[in-house]
Amino acid sequence: MQVALFQLDNYGPWTTTPEPRPEPTLQALQSRLYADFVEALGDRGGYGFYGRFDNLVGITNGLDRTAHRAIQQQLGDAYPVTVSVGIGTGETPGAALGAASEQLQAAGGAQTADRTEALVGDPTTDPGVLQVAHFDIVDVTQNYTNQEHAYETMLQIQEAISSLSMYLYETVDAITFFVGGDNAIAIAPDLDPDVYATALEHLRSETGVEFRVGIGRDSHVGRAGMAAKDALERCRQTGTRIEGLQTVAQGD
Amino acid sequence: MQVALFQLDNYGPWTTTPEPRPEPTLQALQSRLYADFVEALGDRGGYGFYGRFDNLVGITNGLDRTAHRAIQQQLGDAYPVTVSVGIGTGETPGAALGAASEQLQAAGGAQTADRTEALVGDPTTDPGVLQVAHFDIVDVTQNYTNQEHAYETMLQIQEAISSLSMYLYETVDAITFFVGGDNAIAIAPDLDPDVYATALEHLRSETGVEFRVGIGRDSHVGRAGMAAKDALERCRQTGTRIEGLQTVAQGD
Amino acid sequence: MQVALFQLDNYGPWTTTPEPRPEPTLQALQSRLYADFVEALGDRGGYGFYGRFDNLVGITNGLDRTAHRAIQQQLGDAYPVTVSVGIGTGETPGAALGAASEQLQAAGGAQTADRTEALVGDPTTDPGVLQVAHFDIVDVTQNYTNQEHAYETMLQIQEAISSLSMYLYETVDAITFFVGGDNAIAIAPDLDPDVYATALEHLRSETGVEFRVGIGRDSHVGRAGMAAKDALERCRQTGTRIEGLQTVAQGD
Amino acid sequence: MQVALFQLDNYGPWTTTPEPRPEPTLQALQSRLYADFVEALGDRGGYGFYGRFDNLVGITNGLDRTAHRAIQQQLGDAYPVTVSVGIGTGETPGAALGAASEQLQAAGGAQTADRTEALVGDPTTDPGVLQVAHFDIVDVTQNYTNQEHAYETMLQIQEAISSLSMYLYETVDAITFFVGGDNAIAIAPDLDPDVYATALEHLRSETGVEFRVGIGRDSHVGRAGMAAKDALERCRQTGTRIEGLQTVAQGD
Repeated sequence: MQVALFQLDNYGPWTTTPEPRPEPTLQALQSRLYADFVEALGDRGGYGFYGRFDNLVGITNGLDRTAHRAIQQQLGDAYPVTVSVGIGTGETPGAALGAASEQLQAAGGAQTADRTEALVGDPTTDPGVLQVAHFDIVDVTQNYTNQEHAYETMLQIQEAISSLSMYLYETVDAITFFVGGDNAIAIAPDLDPDVYATALEHLRSETGVEFRVGIGRDSHVGRAGMAAKDALERCRQTGTRIEGLQTVAQGD
Repeated sequence: MQVALFQLDNYGPWTTTPEPRPEPTLQALQSRLYADFVEALGDRGGYGFYGRFDNLVGITNGLDRTAHRAIQQQLGDAYPVTVSVGIGTGETPGAALGAASEQLQAAGGAQTADRTEALVGDPTTDPGVLQVAHFDIVDVTQNYTNQEHAYETMLQIQEAISSLSMYLYETVDAITFFVGGDNAIAIAPDLDPDVYATALEHLRSETGVEFRVGIGRDSHVGRAGMAAKDALERCRQTGTRIEGLQTVAQGD
Repeated sequence: MQVALFQLDNYGPWTTTPEPRPEPTLQALQSRLYADFVEALGDRGGYGFYGRFDNLVGITNGLDRTAHRAIQQQLGDAYPVTVSVGIGTGETPGAALGAASEQLQAAGGAQTADRTEALVGDPTTDPGVLQVAHFDIVDVTQNYTNQEHAYETMLQIQEAISSLSMYLYETVDAITFFVGGDNAIAIAPDLDPDVYATALEHLRSETGVEFRVGIGRDSHVGRAGMAAKDALERCRQTGTRIEGLQTVAQGD
Repeated sequence: MQVALFQLDNYGPWTTTPEPRPEPTLQALQSRLYADFVEALGDRGGYGFYGRFDNLVGITNGLDRTAHRAIQQQLGDAYPVTVSVGIGTGETPGAALGAASEQLQAAGGAQTADRTEALVGDPTTDPGVLQVAHFDIVDVTQNYTNQEHAYETMLQIQEAISSLSMYLYETVDAITFFVGGDNAIAIAPDLDPDVYATALEHLRSETGVEFRVGIGRDSHVGRAGMAAKDALERCRQTGTRIEGLQTVAQGD
């Protein structure tokens, strides 16, 4: 498993020097940088998540050092801020991201003025198999969006996805991200299908929210992600709660 | 108080028709649309938040119907999806956003194929005074970013801001949004300073996370927001936990 | 008349320091900066043209110094390069842009390392009336795009619009810009309709290309531009070659 | 040689339906679509040029059908307009782009309402060697930008690059594009160095403008383009007028 942490260099100070910059400007900057980041990864078969916007997470299985450098330069050449990159590998997504974090911390930390465009850590040529688990909430439009206060819906979804994220991190060392609407994507190690069944049941009993999930499995995150989306679509059309893993496992 | 809900028309079905679109494509679309949205609002003195990305929240005090229409058209002309807008007014931000939600629900709901670029609800010419409370976490870089696993830090910040959001919504009907890093912005009614002191204390005892806050107060959200950022900067430089309201109140 | 020249600071050296940056990176930067520029102007009732991409032209009638500063900061905060702005006023668009050029040259020139985000020249509160003349080529799709080699068509259109631009600059001090497809927009002083008839005739005899034109007239360039587009649409639907000025003049 | 023509589907009608869209909106759309286009190509080793903005030119040597489809979908999923693609191959860039034009014309033409996201023509697995010739104007900042009226400079550069483009197209079937500032990039077949010397001399005598040129040579346009930029940088630093080809030819 290979995960890269893309951390804006000295961003906090930049946002307030020489004086605080307008919030719309910062929001536009962060979200455009994220868009370029995710597209640069996507063009190379990877996946990106905004994380905290100043600490972005890239799933970079199969990408070498040159590819990471190219993405780093593309961002540095496009924005008034630069990005340092820590590449981490490990048995699980959690372990890989932990390794990436340590690489960057050792390289100087987020607000060290003299760390600029560091690129640390070594990619692996054998990242192994990962799973992408794409979750959404059953009947969210009818039960929430078209019935409830938009802010209450937002808080409820946030809360449910936060519970999902913590559960998956604690139990299987997966890393999970909100990707808009009522969708969350978990990057997981190679799990048995019943792990997902248990997770959905846990979430329902703890938060009252009913998720479903499509799962893809591949050595490349882009391909696994598309398989996950196709599987989730089968859930939507057939009313099932979990799709993807059995089929893939059988054909494997 | 005036809040507008910008809701993508029939977006869920679009993302999977004729077949699921690649996730990097959707992420890039959503975040660029948000960037344009926040900039179009910012150019007119407003503020925007990504909400759930398919349900974006605009603070539009002082913007008339023509301005809302122009922003709606700008987005519709730039993306393959269109946006419906509900304008809500009320005594508090929560009430205004609730009214905006109801307007849109009455206009057909989020996945009604025949609702396209609706613009419902009436702006007010007297939106009154609002407060912008800009929060961040004390010593987040030293205590978290440079010490901890990036994903654990992300989860902790997410959890803390979620608690903050719920507390402020339940107690004073404010609406609060994560804006990157360790920052959250609350749009609040005209509150006494001690409300914020109580909130910070509540958060510390409940989550162990220590926030500080800069507050701005104005009839225009853009001006209030800049004042809040300046006030937060004073917190950072002087070590205080709350800045802005007293000063403004005295000078008012 | 008021025209502003937005000139990237020390851009040439930046593109090759420390070593030449990839061309796709520079193209993406320049065209996104232009998109933000034109939108920031458009949100305030102005018009923008890419000029040479490192020297962009803004038609800023009615915009004050604060608005120019806000646009300058928005760009400086979004990109790795900064922008200096010269504001010029004059009887004609050509004269106003000439004055803007001189302002910037006096402020240090384009590759002076120590000129950063200069803002020079004074807006006028009485910019007067301007005309926007929106040209396109009659039957371009049937006669060129669907028949000819794409590159030859591109060269022919380039040549024709270049001739148009020079003719209008020399005869009436208008400034004309290619805006994509077969479209060119001239910003002109308040002209008699027969000037346009003579121009079309001149172009036809000199280049063999038949243009038509819709004209708008207003103190605000955004409104004049929309009127010009509506007028050009009337040309397209009724087969006429010049629309807009007579009507406006009669109703004025 | 392989060149692809990316043509917006039915774009002219779209810009005026149901009524003319604001010019800033169209400019922002066109330039952002171009930015995404050039970046999607760049991420895959290709080069893109804006052409007429509604007819964009991609140098796609080495890219297969799947890559063209991915770029087409990325654009179609990001904008309210779709793109058809004609892939052409030939001995020269001019011949390849001509073949691409014919492919698209045969597929229905630019304003056929029922042509949507066509992808026609066959990539070649053996595109051969191409040259990228990167031109700029000697002393443009001192002689023009810092001395002259910005619009006159723009017209002079436009005129000079137009002459350069026509000369190279007529003599060696190269295709040349303005890329901002005083820069033009020609995509050329594998030429002898003296062709460039003759071209520079011709341009000087015809337009009075002195160009210099850095040349790169490779089977991949991205690599050839970087070599050309490095070579042009040597011209700038050593005062020579032509760099790149001799060195490469010697080492070949």
